[in-house]
Amino acid sequence: MQTIDILWVTFCAGLVFMMQVGFLCLETGFTRSKNNVNVAVKNLTDFCVSSLIFWAVGFGLMFGTSHDGWFGASGFIFDHTDGQWSYATFFIFQLMFCGAAVTIISGAVAERMKLSSYVIMTVLISGLIYPIGGHWSWATLFGGETNGFLADLGFYDFAGSTVVHSVGGWASLAVLLIIGPRLGRFDEDPEVGAFIPSNMPLAGVGTLFLFIGWLGFNGGSTLAWNDQVGLILVNTILAAATGAVSAGVLAFGVTNRLNAGQFMNGCLGGLVAVTAGANLFSTPLAILVGFVGGMVVVSTEELLEYFRIDDAVGAVPVHLGAGIWGTLAVGLYGDLELIGTGLNRMEQIAVQILGIAVYAAWAFGVTFVVLLMINQVHKLRVTREEEIVGLNISEHGLVTEEQALLTDMVSKKIL
Amino acid sequence: MQTIDILWVTFCAGLVFMMQVGFLCLETGFTRSKNNVNVAVKNLTDFCVSSLIFWAVGFGLMFGTSHDGWFGASGFIFDHTDGQWSYATFFIFQLMFCGAAVTIISGAVAERMKLSSYVIMTVLISGLIYPIGGHWSWATLFGGETNGFLADLGFYDFAGSTVVHSVGGWASLAVLLIIGPRLGRFDEDPEVGAFIPSNMPLAGVGTLFLFIGWLGFNGGSTLAWNDQVGLILVNTILAAATGAVSAGVLAFGVTNRLNAGQFMNGCLGGLVAVTAGANLFSTPLAILVGFVGGMVVVSTEELLEYFRIDDAVGAVPVHLGAGIWGTLAVGLYGDLELIGTGLNRMEQIAVQILGIAVYAAWAFGVTFVVLLMINQVHKLRVTREEEIVGLNISEHGLVTEEQALLTDMVSKKIL
Amino acid sequence: MQTIDILWVTFCAGLVFMMQVGFLCLETGFTRSKNNVNVAVKNLTDFCVSSLIFWAVGFGLMFGTSHDGWFGASGFIFDHTDGQWSYATFFIFQLMFCGAAVTIISGAVAERMKLSSYVIMTVLISGLIYPIGGHWSWATLFGGETNGFLADLGFYDFAGSTVVHSVGGWASLAVLLIIGPRLGRFDEDPEVGAFIPSNMPLAGVGTLFLFIGWLGFNGGSTLAWNDQVGLILVNTILAAATGAVSAGVLAFGVTNRLNAGQFMNGCLGGLVAVTAGANLFSTPLAILVGFVGGMVVVSTEELLEYFRIDDAVGAVPVHLGAGIWGTLAVGLYGDLELIGTGLNRMEQIAVQILGIAVYAAWAFGVTFVVLLMINQVHKLRVTREEEIVGLNISEHGLVTEEQALLTDMVSKKIL
Repeated sequence: MQTIDILWVTFCAGLVFMMQVGFLCLETGFTRSKNNVNVAVKNLTDFCVSSLIFWAVGFGLMFGTSHDGWFGASGFIFDHTDGQWSYATFFIFQLMFCGAAVTIISGAVAERMKLSSYVIMTVLISGLIYPIGGHWSWATLFGGETNGFLADLGFYDFAGSTVVHSVGGWASLAVLLIIGPRLGRFDEDPEVGAFIPSNMPLAGVGTLFLFIGWLGFNGGSTLAWNDQVGLILVNTILAAATGAVSAGVLAFGVTNRLNAGQFMNGCLGGLVAVTAGANLFSTPLAILVGFVGGMVVVSTEELLEYFRIDDAVGAVPVHLGAGIWGTLAVGLYGDLELIGTGLNRMEQIAVQILGIAVYAAWAFGVTFVVLLMINQVHKLRVTREEEIVGLNISEHGLVTEEQALLTDMVSKKIL
Repeated sequence: MQTIDILWVTFCAGLVFMMQVGFLCLETGFTRSKNNVNVAVKNLTDFCVSSLIFWAVGFGLMFGTSHDGWFGASGFIFDHTDGQWSYATFFIFQLMFCGAAVTIISGAVAERMKLSSYVIMTVLISGLIYPIGGHWSWATLFGGETNGFLADLGFYDFAGSTVVHSVGGWASLAVLLIIGPRLGRFDEDPEVGAFIPSNMPLAGVGTLFLFIGWLGFNGGSTLAWNDQVGLILVNTILAAATGAVSAGVLAFGVTNRLNAGQFMNGCLGGLVAVTAGANLFSTPLAILVGFVGGMVVVSTEELLEYFRIDDAVGAVPVHLGAGIWGTLAVGLYGDLELIGTGLNRMEQIAVQILGIAVYAAWAFGVTFVVLLMINQVHKLRVTREEEIVGLNISEHGLVTEEQALLTDMVSKKIL
Repeated sequence: MQTIDILWVTFCAGLVFMMQVGFLCLETGFTRSKNNVNVAVKNLTDFCVSSLIFWAVGFGLMFGTSHDGWFGASGFIFDHTDGQWSYATFFIFQLMFCGAAVTIISGAVAERMKLSSYVIMTVLISGLIYPIGGHWSWATLFGGETNGFLADLGFYDFAGSTVVHSVGGWASLAVLLIIGPRLGRFDEDPEVGAFIPSNMPLAGVGTLFLFIGWLGFNGGSTLAWNDQVGLILVNTILAAATGAVSAGVLAFGVTNRLNAGQFMNGCLGGLVAVTAGANLFSTPLAILVGFVGGMVVVSTEELLEYFRIDDAVGAVPVHLGAGIWGTLAVGLYGDLELIGTGLNRMEQIAVQILGIAVYAAWAFGVTFVVLLMINQVHKLRVTREEEIVGLNISEHGLVTEEQALLTDMVSKKIL
C-alpha cells in the first residue's frame, strides 16, 4: 500500500466509525423512551468490548496465518510497534467492521435483553463467530497466503453483505428465537402500553449517518485509492436512494401511508444489498439491486411478523434479508471477469448460495446453541417486572422526565 | 485531476453529505413535535429522490455538452463504467450540491406541505430548475467547452451563494406564496397552540453539521487540492463565526435576549454569504462579509414577518437573503484579478446584479408558475384537519409519547 | 509539509471540529431540559467567539516569534493571503484545539452561569490562558525557533492532555469554585425537583463524536502523514474502549448498576489520558493508561462530590483528572528515546510533575483571580429565580413543550 492508499483507508475507517453513531441513533430512535438509554449504552458497550476482544483474539483468528483455510492462528494481541503502518491501518479498518457486525444485534434484541447477557454475546460474536467466519472469505485481504475455504471455492463478497451484515443478522435471529418477543408485542398485555418510538427524527439522523458511513464501508474495501472507488461510491449512493424509494412505495402501496421506519430501513436495505458487489455492477444494475433490497426489507418484516419473531428495529430484514439478496445478486449479475474466480454464471450462483448456507449454519447455529446453553445458567432476558418498568430504570437507575411526570400523575390518581 | 485532488474532492463530498444531517437536525429541531417526523422524512426523501433524478437527468442538463450556453444535452443516466475516476468523483460532489439545493426548501415549507407535493417539487428542482440554472454559471467546471451564458458575461459564484443557495431560497419563496402561512401563525386560531420548537439542542447539532459540512462545500469547490484551500477554509470558518455573533448581537440589541434560532441562522447566513467569494477575499474581508450576512438574516426575517410570509425555519433569510448579499459582495470586494473576467469593478457589480436577477426570474418564476398549476389539480397543502392533528399522524400514522399523553389527558377531561 | 501531510491535517481538523458536536450533545444530554437550549447556545457561542479571538490574538501569542519562551509576539490577525498553505492548515488545526479547550468549560458550569459571563470567560481563555500556556510547550510546533520554557526543560505533552484538556479542566474548576453548586444539588431545596438528564441517548451520540473526533485530535498532532499515525490511532481507540470498560466496571462494582454517565465519561477519560503520549506507548501500555484513566474519572467524581463541588457533566474528572494522569504516564511509561529530551526516567517524571503544577498555577490561578474580580462587578451567575425557572426561559425566552404542559397543568391545579 502506498501512503495515499493508507490515507484513504484511514479516512474510510473514520466513516465506518460513524456508522456506530448511525446505529445508536436509529436504534434509540425506534425504541420506547423507557428503554432508550439502555439501547444507547449497549451500542457503546459493544463497540468498546468488541474492539478489545478483536484486538486480543479476533484479528488473529481472522487474518493470522491460516490453518488450512479454517482460521488464522497468529497476530493475537496486535501491537503495531512490531508492524508496519499499513498493517495498523488495516487493523483499524477491520476493527470497525467487527464493531458494525456486533452492533447490528443490539437493535434487534432491544428492550428485553440484559446488558450482562449482551456483553457475553458481544464477546462471542467478536471473538469467535465474526472473525472465524470472516477468515473463510477474506483471509487473504492483507498479506495472507492461504485462501479461506469459501474464497477458495469461489465465494465472493466484496465488502460484507454476508461476512458482516448477514452474520450480524443471523446472530440476531438466533438471539431473538431464544429470548422471545417483547411483552405485549404479539399478545395483549394490560400492563404494556402502545409501542411508540421514542425519537423518529433521531432515527432519521441515524439513517443518514449509516448512509454516510457506508461510503467508507464500501469505498474503503478496495484497500486502495484506485479508480474502482468512483464507481463503488456512485453505486452505493444510488442503491441506497433506490432502496428507500422502493420500500417507501411498497409500504405506501399497502397502507396508503409512508411508514417512516420502513422507508428508513429500505434505504439501509439498499445499502446492505449493494455491499457484496458494489464494485461489480454497472450503475443501473446497482440501482436494480438496491430496488429489490428495499422490497426485501419490507417483505422480510412481514415474514417475521407472520412468524411472531419480534425484531425491535428491523435488523434482521435489513441486514439478513437484504444481505442474502445482495450476496445472491453477485452471482446473478456480477461481472464474472471482475469477480475473477473463473467460474461460469451458474457455478458462481451456486457457490454464492453455498456461502449463504455456510454462514447461516455457522452464525445462526453456533450463536443459537451457545446462547441457549448460557441461557440455562444466566437468563438472557430481564424479568417481566424489569421489562415493564423499562430497562433505563432497571439496568441504569435512570428516569426520564416524561416517566417522572407520568409516575407523578399516576400516583396522584390523575391518570 | 491528480489522485490527491480526487481524494480531496471525495472527502469534501462526504462533508457536504453531512450537511444533510445538518438540515435534518436543524429543521426537525425548529418545528413542532407534531410535525417533526414528517420533516425528517422529507429530508431523507428529497435526498434519495433528487439523487436519482440528478443521476438520470440533472447531471446531463448541468454539465453535458452545452446547447449554446443554455443547457447541457449529454451524459444522462450517468454510468461511470464508461467514464474516468475523476468524473465519477465530480458527479458525486455535484450530486451532493443538488441535494443541498433541494433540501433547503423542506424547512421553509414544513408543517403544512404534503409529502406527495414535496416529492413533485423535488423532481422539479433537481431535474430542471437547479441543473439548468447551474449550467449558466458552471458549465465548464469539468471539461465542458462552452461557457454558460451567465459565466460568459462574467458572472462569478465560486461555490454557489446563488447557484445553490439562492436557487433553493427562491424556490422556497415561491412555494411559500402558494401554500400560505401555517394556521395560527399570523392570526389567532383557537385550535392551534403555541409554536414551540420541538428540539432546539438538536437544531444546535444541525448548525454544527452545516458548519462542518460547509468546509467541504467551499473547500471542495476548487476541485483540486491546491494552495487556495487553506485560505478558503479560514475564510469560511471566520465568516460563519462572525455571522453568528452579528446576528446574535443584533437580535440581543432588539429584544435584550439572545434568540437561539436567530443566532444559529446567523451562523448559516455567514456561511452562505462567504460562499460566492470564499477564494477571493482576504480574511478580514471575509469576516466583513460574514458580519453583514448575519445581519441580513435577521433583517430578512423581519421583512418576511412584515409581509406575513411564513418560513418555518428561516430558510429564505439564510439561503436567499445572505445568498444575494454574498453574490453582491463578490462584485463589491472580490479581487478582480482572481475573478479573472477582465471586467472592472462597476462592470463586475453590474453582472453580479444581473445574475441575481436572472436566477430570481428562473428559480422563483418557473417554480411559482409550475407549482401554481399543479396546485390546481393536486393541492400542495394538507387539509386544515391534518395540519391541526399534525403531519406525523396524518402522513405517517405516528404518534409521539407526548401526544399520546396529551390525548389521553384530554379524553379524560384532565386538560 | 508535503501536500499529503496538509491533507491529513485538514482531515484531522475536520474530525476535531466534530468534537464540538460531541461536546454539545454530551452536555445538553446530561443537563436538565429547562437548561438544555442554553447549554447548546453556549457551545456554539464559545466556538464562534473563541475562533475570532484566537484568530486576532491567540494564535500570535501561542505560535508567534517567542519572547524568551514566555509568549509569542507576532502573527496577530492571521491573514493567510500573506502566508503559505501549510501555515493556514496549521492555523485551522490549532483553532479547533483552542475551541476544544474552551468548550470543555461549558459543561462544568452549565445550568447556572450567565451567557454573558460565559462569553467573557471565553475571551479570557481563548485570548490569554490557553495560547500563552500553549506557547510554553508547543512554541516550536510550526517553524518557531525558540522553545517554550516548559518544553525547554523537557516537558512533553504530545497532543494536549495538559495543554488542552487540563487547562480546560483547571479553568472549569476555578469557575466552579466562584459560582458554587446548582440549587438543590447538595442541599434540599423545595423549589428544585430531581436532577434528570434531558437526553442520555444524545449524550451517547456525543460520546461517539468525541471518540471519533479524538482520532483527529491525536492523529493529526503528528502534523504529518507518517508511520506514527497507525500506532497513535490504534492506541487512541483501545485506550478509549478500556477507559469505558474500567469506569463501567468500577461504577458497577460500587452500585451494582452500570451508571450510563460514568460509563460515557470513562470512555472520555481513556481518551484524555492517552493523549499526552499516544505516540510513545506500545498498545498494551496505552490500554493500561486508558484503564487507569477510566478509574481516575470515577474517583475524581467521588472527590468532587465529597468537596461539594458541582460539575454538571463531569468535565473536571474527565479533562483534569485524566489529563493529569495522562501527563504523568508519559513520565512513567513513555519511551524515553521517542520523547527525545535526553532526560532519564526520574528526571522526566519530575519535569512532567513540574509541568502539571505550572499549568495548575496558570490556568487555575489566573482564571480564578480574574473571574473573581469580574464577579464583583458583573455577577457570573444567574439569579435564584432565573435558575429555578431555567436558563432556556430566562436567557432565551424559550419554553419546551414539556414545560408548557407542566405549567399548564400546574395552573389548572392538576399537579
